[in-house]
Amino acid sequence: MRYQLYYWPGIPGRGEFVRLALEAGGAKYDDVARLPNREGGVSALMHFMEDERVKRRPFAPPYLKAGRLLIGQTANILLFLGPRLGLVPDDEASRLWAHQLQLTIADLVTEVHDTHHPIASSLYYEDQKREAKRRAKHLVSERLPKYLGYFEGVIADNARGKGFMIGNALSYVDLSMFQLLAGLQYAFPNNVAKLAKRLPRLAALQDLVAEQPRIAAYLASDRRLPFNEQGIFRHYPELDV
Amino acid sequence: MRYQLYYWPGIPGRGEFVRLALEAGGAKYDDVARLPNREGGVSALMHFMEDERVKRRPFAPPYLKAGRLLIGQTANILLFLGPRLGLVPDDEASRLWAHQLQLTIADLVTEVHDTHHPIASSLYYEDQKREAKRRAKHLVSERLPKYLGYFEGVIADNARGKGFMIGNALSYVDLSMFQLLAGLQYAFPNNVAKLAKRLPRLAALQDLVAEQPRIAAYLASDRRLPFNEQGIFRHYPELDV
Repeated sequence: MRYQLYYWPGIPGRGEFVRLALEAGGAKYDDVARLPNREGGVSALMHFMEDERVKRRPFAPPYLKAGRLLIGQTANILLFLGPRLGLVPDDEASRLWAHQLQLTIADLVTEVHDTHHPIASSLYYEDQKREAKRRAKHLVSERLPKYLGYFEGVIADNARGKGFMIGNALSYVDLSMFQLLAGLQYAFPNNVAKLAKRLPRLAALQDLVAEQPRIAAYLASDRRLPFNEQGIFRHYPELDV
Repeated sequence: MRYQLYYWPGIPGRGEFVRLALEAGGAKYDDVARLPNREGGVSALMHFMEDERVKRRPFAPPYLKAGRLLIGQTANILLFLGPRLGLVPDDEASRLWAHQLQLTIADLVTEVHDTHHPIASSLYYEDQKREAKRRAKHLVSERLPKYLGYFEGVIADNARGKGFMIGNALSYVDLSMFQLLAGLQYAFPNNVAKLAKRLPRLAALQDLVAEQPRIAAYLASDRRLPFNEQGIFRHYPELDV
């Protein structure tokens, strides 16, 4: 099976959580919106959202084509890919737990996005900077410690897990946690450095994921997009005081 | 199987999406945190989040006990319950689509909550009222039309579906849509009334769900909690101009 990933080109965004799973699972895939226009491009991305002849249109990217299936919502795509790419344990309890953690990661991702856009996604950051500063104080002092402390505890509780979050092998949740931590370090370097002292297991997980051969190769390739100030994780120094 | 639902007593909140599925599916369940202290209560709710002897603790309510399984995240609980309660079609494509829609509903629920709490959940509404007013304008003029128009289109595309969102029978997505619409009508009566003219299928779906015998009985019972100003959907007239 060759997959087609559809996501905005130019930002890692939510698409990156899917991309990491495809890469770690050794899947063949096309990153359609990043292809030249004759092979894909943004118009191919928009087609599935806007063409009314497409049934079961997704609300927003990312979405994945898998043969005739068109699957939207990041966590739903990972729910689908996990078993197929060997990135989640076999038992139902672990699969539900993996998805539960993925949805908790998704909640924090939304909170981080909304920190630079607390009023509206349709407004520029500069037009909601005052509110963003106010929200950022709560994010770094309350929300990040609460969420990251929780995830640190998940690894600690998975005592026989060799440092992974679920079971004793790499899962899509580890990959998403890696991306979340990388994004937070990019966006809030000062605050995350302070928090990191109490999060040794998350730091070790980040290294563990980065050292997986397929991930190491991917991170060194031009398929990996850098963070920037158009995406979810943005570095605005005034939000990281 | 008798289920145990854990959610904050006193608000419908995210727990209500699960409660509606349990009720529509005719499941036996305990609403644990609403029981007297000797049988449950808030301390029973907190136990699963705070007691470090509990493995795979959820980050937040709602969560569901199903025998030995402890399942958190609203959409994940519904993913689990759907097939067991006959509230989702059998085929994989429809199940993924149902979950995708549920996650899109969840995204809007978060946007609605954050409209009265755009800065921090830990602050009172009164301490972020100025920002809430600004955000509410964007919610009612941009976000609600976009999301609700999308959901209206989902029903329209499901042409043989007798008015349901997926397939031709009641699913957990219909129940969640019913709750979302009821909440929006409570919180933003003026704006939702204006939008409703362009959303005839969603209005018909609300009636269709309310007329299901088990749901009609539930809505008339004291198990159904009213909306109030502690929950997700709050009626603040200044946000509904």
